Amino acid sequence: MDRRSFLRASTVGAGAAAASTLAAPAYAQGQRTLTMVTSWPRGFAVLDDAAQYLVKFVGELSGGDLTIDLKAPGELVGAFEVFDAVSSGQADMYHAADYYFIGQHPGFAYFTAVPFGGTAQEMVNWYYHGGGQDLHDELGSIFNLKGLMAGNSGSQSGGWFRNEIKSADDFNGLKFRMPGLGGQVLGKLGASVQNIPGGELYQALSSGALDGLEWVGPLADERAGFQEVAKIYYTAGFHEPGSALSANVNLDVWNDLTDKQKAILNYGSMATTHYQLAETLANNGAALARLQAQGVKTLQFSDDVWDAFGKASAEVMDENMNDELFAKIRISFEESLATSASWINKSDGFYVQQRVRVLGQ
Amino acid sequence: MDRRSFLRASTVGAGAAAASTLAAPAYAQGQRTLTMVTSWPRGFAVLDDAAQYLVKFVGELSGGDLTIDLKAPGELVGAFEVFDAVSSGQADMYHAADYYFIGQHPGFAYFTAVPFGGTAQEMVNWYYHGGGQDLHDELGSIFNLKGLMAGNSGSQSGGWFRNEIKSADDFNGLKFRMPGLGGQVLGKLGASVQNIPGGELYQALSSGALDGLEWVGPLADERAGFQEVAKIYYTAGFHEPGSALSANVNLDVWNDLTDKQKAILNYGSMATTHYQLAETLANNGAALARLQAQGVKTLQFSDDVWDAFGKASAEVMDENMNDELFAKIRISFEESLATSASWINKSDGFYVQQRVRVLGQ
Repeated sequence: MDRRSFLRASTVGAGAAAASTLAAPAYAQGQRTLTMVTSWPRGFAVLDDAAQYLVKFVGELSGGDLTIDLKAPGELVGAFEVFDAVSSGQADMYHAADYYFIGQHPGFAYFTAVPFGGTAQEMVNWYYHGGGQDLHDELGSIFNLKGLMAGNSGSQSGGWFRNEIKSADDFNGLKFRMPGLGGQVLGKLGASVQNIPGGELYQALSSGALDGLEWVGPLADERAGFQEVAKIYYTAGFHEPGSALSANVNLDVWNDLTDKQKAILNYGSMATTHYQLAETLANNGAALARLQAQGVKTLQFSDDVWDAFGKASAEVMDENMNDELFAKIRISFEESLATSASWINKSDGFYVQQRVRVLGQ
Repeated sequence: MDRRSFLRASTVGAGAAAASTLAAPAYAQGQRTLTMVTSWPRGFAVLDDAAQYLVKFVGELSGGDLTIDLKAPGELVGAFEVFDAVSSGQADMYHAADYYFIGQHPGFAYFTAVPFGGTAQEMVNWYYHGGGQDLHDELGSIFNLKGLMAGNSGSQSGGWFRNEIKSADDFNGLKFRMPGLGGQVLGKLGASVQNIPGGELYQALSSGALDGLEWVGPLADERAGFQEVAKIYYTAGFHEPGSALSANVNLDVWNDLTDKQKAILNYGSMATTHYQLAETLANNGAALARLQAQGVKTLQFSDDVWDAFGKASAEVMDENMNDELFAKIRISFEESLATSASWINKSDGFYVQQRVRVLGQ
């Protein structure tokens, strides 16, 4: 699917089909279909890939007895309306990034990514073995949701710019797209931060409504076509070091599933993250090389800029600490991250440094 | 289960139960049980954990219709006899590390770990998205096996020593346990390398039959009790930067399974790697701190020693290149690793360096 088709798909209009009624659930012969609304136009690399793998894996694991009917933005509700649709029972589940919903509760940031947070592996460590899943469920239950982690983008790029960022002052007045708490951090640096659905980003960057944006990483960004309208690409970013995707289920629907159906969604989600993250990381290197061949200049932010990100990030995190559940989630996450990192830096981290030194890669 | 129970379990004798006959397969009412022999004594952290998660996930995913009957070493065959048992059809599948079987074919090394090879993430990238699974199947088919990746140890420690390694010369004459191609590398440095099943290692180190050994990492090593008999622990190693575990199935058995049963084993294996690797990495930091509290001194090998590992590793790899399938696997693996690493070093790698610089972790 090319970029222009994405645009058509995403501009059908968020609310156009919102009033559609769902077909009656199919329970015949033990079969069940779950309607899943997503925040990703069909064909969007990495993100729609994860949603599609979940559909595929659940179908195969159940021998067709449990199926997921995927509805992209505009097919039932808009990209950012999926949370309310599932919370209210209009749809059975959604596939999205939970930091889109920090307006509902700032704690949702932790179930996608937070500034200076965990890599993909550190996120998974916390989610399954550091209390993350329980906290996702506790937070979700306020909104009648059951949390599932299903997909991960890997470490996201610093983003696309028309001009180099030579100091943190260059963010002042910049019209930039960045969701989640990362966007609030850039706001501290004076950026005019906007959150726009993925399907509308190419147009916003082309028209000058945005000066720059971050989306995902080379594979997803190349497919979206940003290299056609901006030529400066920062490869590492502070804002999303391993963004998890969510496949949250309406809690009444979840409670009505059999143990086997729950297991299929649970382990099918794990397999989705495992398989899709690996696909992304296996392909980003080649995608980056293709971007460079199209004239894209790749850079890293300077230490001074990273220091400014660090200072503003700490302020943003601390401003949310008056919310008790946010504080509980933050403390759990940071404890897990510290113990994960204490080992990983001594093992994988040291090993990769030596491999680069000895072999050059 | 404590260490002494491990020893009892593993010293029952490898061949003691080898002549047992299997019960007739249970096909009643669509149910099926697969006998899985493993190389891990029950209760061995990380490795038996992975095998047990596979049993649990497959059982839950199938609603009990597909069950795995796990047989630890000595319950049906010995730790290193699992390959022949499954190849011949004496058992349906095994859970082990395929580099135990480089005597059958050196290419099996790549499906666990090779010196200066991939991290856990890079292994998964290659296996599912760089041709690894197909090559595992091609190699396995020679021995009537279908390959599945089910578990990963993460980056393994450099190992346990009675004395510090001050130069590569200190390996000369050292009685050391290290399986796979890594062991051949230490052989080049003059070590007397032995491959001993995990359940017998504590006794070998205690008795002086071994001067040192590598096993897995802090969580698994602490459980095995090596800190009681050696006090020098190198945290990063060259030999196993992300060892995959295998759940290989007898090919006739595999071909007889339904598509749904195959999907359950396939995605159940992915979920196993995802969940167990995260558990290991979430717990290694705390395990290392406990080892240090028991007087263990942690070190890293010097650059000179890493250079010696690098030189000897290249020699070992090149010596196997006269085997056509080994060469094919090596080329596939190294191409995948190069493209994975080219991105990961610029994103996750750079990010973690900045996080350490800005936040200290």
